Amino acid sequence: MTGADLVVLSNRGPFSFSRDKNGELVSKRSGGGLASTLGPVLQKIKTTWITAAVTDTDREAVQGASQETVGHASDIQAVTNSFGQTVLKTLILDPARYSMAYDVVSNTVLWFCLHNLFDPVHQPHLDCHFTKAWEAYREINRQFAASAANEAAEDAHVLVQDYHLFLVGSFLAELRPDLSITHFTHTPFCSPQDLGYLPDPISKELLSAMFSYKACGFHAKRWEEAYKSCCRELLEKDPNQTFVAPLGPDINYLNQTVASSECTDAYSRINKLAGGNRLILRVDRIEPSKNILRGFLAFEEMMKTRADLREKVVFLAMLYSSRQQLAQYISYKAEIETLVKRINDTWSTKNWSPIILNIQDNHVHSVAALRAYDVLLVNPIKDGLNLIAKEGPIVNSNNGVVVLSNQTGAFEELKDHVIEVNPFDITQTAQALANGLDTGITERKQTAQALKSLISQRAANGWFNDLLKVCSL
Amino acid sequence: MTGADLVVLSNRGPFSFSRDKNGELVSKRSGGGLASTLGPVLQKIKTTWITAAVTDTDREAVQGASQETVGHASDIQAVTNSFGQTVLKTLILDPARYSMAYDVVSNTVLWFCLHNLFDPVHQPHLDCHFTKAWEAYREINRQFAASAANEAAEDAHVLVQDYHLFLVGSFLAELRPDLSITHFTHTPFCSPQDLGYLPDPISKELLSAMFSYKACGFHAKRWEEAYKSCCRELLEKDPNQTFVAPLGPDINYLNQTVASSECTDAYSRINKLAGGNRLILRVDRIEPSKNILRGFLAFEEMMKTRADLREKVVFLAMLYSSRQQLAQYISYKAEIETLVKRINDTWSTKNWSPIILNIQDNHVHSVAALRAYDVLLVNPIKDGLNLIAKEGPIVNSNNGVVVLSNQTGAFEELKDHVIEVNPFDITQTAQALANGLDTGITERKQTAQALKSLISQRAANGWFNDLLKVCSL
Repeated sequence: MTGADLVVLSNRGPFSFSRDKNGELVSKRSGGGLASTLGPVLQKIKTTWITAAVTDTDREAVQGASQETVGHASDIQAVTNSFGQTVLKTLILDPARYSMAYDVVSNTVLWFCLHNLFDPVHQPHLDCHFTKAWEAYREINRQFAASAANEAAEDAHVLVQDYHLFLVGSFLAELRPDLSITHFTHTPFCSPQDLGYLPDPISKELLSAMFSYKACGFHAKRWEEAYKSCCRELLEKDPNQTFVAPLGPDINYLNQTVASSECTDAYSRINKLAGGNRLILRVDRIEPSKNILRGFLAFEEMMKTRADLREKVVFLAMLYSSRQQLAQYISYKAEIETLVKRINDTWSTKNWSPIILNIQDNHVHSVAALRAYDVLLVNPIKDGLNLIAKEGPIVNSNNGVVVLSNQTGAFEELKDHVIEVNPFDITQTAQALANGLDTGITERKQTAQALKSLISQRAANGWFNDLLKVCSL
Repeated sequence: MTGADLVVLSNRGPFSFSRDKNGELVSKRSGGGLASTLGPVLQKIKTTWITAAVTDTDREAVQGASQETVGHASDIQAVTNSFGQTVLKTLILDPARYSMAYDVVSNTVLWFCLHNLFDPVHQPHLDCHFTKAWEAYREINRQFAASAANEAAEDAHVLVQDYHLFLVGSFLAELRPDLSITHFTHTPFCSPQDLGYLPDPISKELLSAMFSYKACGFHAKRWEEAYKSCCRELLEKDPNQTFVAPLGPDINYLNQTVASSECTDAYSRINKLAGGNRLILRVDRIEPSKNILRGFLAFEEMMKTRADLREKVVFLAMLYSSRQQLAQYISYKAEIETLVKRINDTWSTKNWSPIILNIQDNHVHSVAALRAYDVLLVNPIKDGLNLIAKEGPIVNSNNGVVVLSNQTGAFEELKDHVIEVNPFDITQTAQALANGLDTGITERKQTAQALKSLISQRAANGWFNDLLKVCSL
């Protein structure tokens, strides 16, 4: 049997597509960092990477590109392109079914469950419509599995990525018992209580599917432990093999970006924008799990309790929109804008406005801002890893301090060199921001150096090498 | 030293007071059942019961009644009355401070934390105002402790009730090391993750205070286990002595109520209201933890999927308002009314309206409704015990079936004779309601008999005798 020695499955591919103002298709490196992480390693192994066309524009783009084949592997339409030495196979899935799986199950129910974002009095709302959406999710997972079964060489390794594809394992193990199939969860994994939000047959189906993998990986020990507790309490089984392999930043890519003239220009503009004030920064997707509202409230409490810091600090929030097809994300964005206006209206003086809200999606500008911060605020409710907490110290040139939520995967690695916060504690976060600003230059230098050196020890390919090691065991 | 051999501390006393339409003070047996539970037992022991005047009317009433003393025990103003053979001591606490402790800390933060009701993206909102409210809560607890220290005979037993008074133990143990002090939590106890909503110093203060009791009691094993996990994970200590003592219904009182002519009349009216339809019933305080919205949504899904049950069943919701000084409770009540109207507008026919919403606070009418149900729906998100699930089968005369959330304390005792639901699963709840209605008469009779006999084995005084036993160990 010919085929790929390594098959990678992920919902989103290395590029996403949109149309520019002239109506031309333009491609963009996808968020998530998987592409740059895998890039260097994939050149050594015969790899097929299977993804889905996420948007209508993606579907159009992959079908219109220099494609080698439009085939029907089993019953699934797919387009094959090459991406470096890797074969990139994009599944063209039924848009209505894909939307139920992606928008309803993955991004509304599973994401909210795994990050503890439900308002339990009102959400989740699991009725007969959800049952249908779950059937769509199951079918999309089956189609990924069928495609992988078709692509993999005998005894190949299969790496299944993330919560969109939890169920692939049970289908694929049945189709191809020769394969060595590993799953990696990039989000947190939740406690048995939180998984209990799902209907009992569904939480059991999910865990049973995870149980069918040779191994399940997580970014942090706490998510691994949560998964094990779920196996024990809800499945009443000892867990299968698990491992912890935190992702690192793509340091070469970051250094190249910092060195670019676009980044240098943006850095100048940001310094001008800060207007000689000290700089608190956050860089985030507009996402409820990021706890953006409490970040602003903490900053306001700091201004209340530390009059000496008023007119001396600005809070720059570099945010970018996402999932604007979901009601929760539209209203969360509006809440952010309303709160920022209210705080600025309350505290602004003639020459100073405390919060600068910058909503755009520009990676280079974000990197430029990371160069400049005095304090970087990373306070998620829960976060599988949080790569910004690792990228910030790599590019920062200001001996900046990191205020980090103890509910992030990255906290496990970085805790000795950051200011810890409980993300729900606004008062503690306010004090942490002030402490960050108060830290003396000698301590800042030492801490920044220690963070940078710790993070550099485990760059992006460390994660992927760990995954390959687990596969080969 | 003279004094009481038993001191009971609870936030609310056996009576609450209001003014009737002529402006006259009228007293009413308080909700919660502690009064009727303690009544018979207290006659044998020299007891002082210390409570707080909760409302302005309470304060007025106790000060105006046939009082024996208005004294200042240490620095706390108190009124002493007798209640049977028990001395009833009502603390007159500073209203502003009491309101911060009661409304903000106890009923908004602690209640929501213990029942997993927070919407984590927005609530809790723990800023410098909460720090002040916590100081008020601590002070109220200190005042209860000072009063108990003053009242208790040497080596007396002290029983501290519920989440309003978690901190009493640490103050009282220091003031009076001779006393044997036990705490009983009537709510659920939450997981370490949920207790983590509180600022770290506060969750540690709370657990340390609980640790200072000789023993801590709960209505169910799951809450005991949750408390132990919190001690281990957040306090890094092996837990102190714990015990499980579920409360039972006051069977004599229920039987007397059923036999009253007021109840007989109400029973006739309810049967007339049901109009020959089969009856699904819920009896609840309007309280987010009771999961009232999902109950109606499940009933609607049943009507969607089981056309044969339309125009044959009505859902009677006997609800009573509470905590209407809190915004969440006002909006929850409005949401209920809006949803009921929407469902009735959708499904009503010429001679049939599916939901009858009855908002009033009348215990006799509730008992009359419990006599009549075919299916009793009890689906809380979390509930320390849920006494309705035990009272229903005692008074029901219709071989009714109970649909019970597996997140209630009562579920542990009753699970073999009820239809289990995951409270978040609307589809499963809809099916459970239909199953309840479909159950044949032979099985209904057997189940109803088994439930009644099981519940009767442990009536109200069983709980109190267990508490006294733990004290005497």
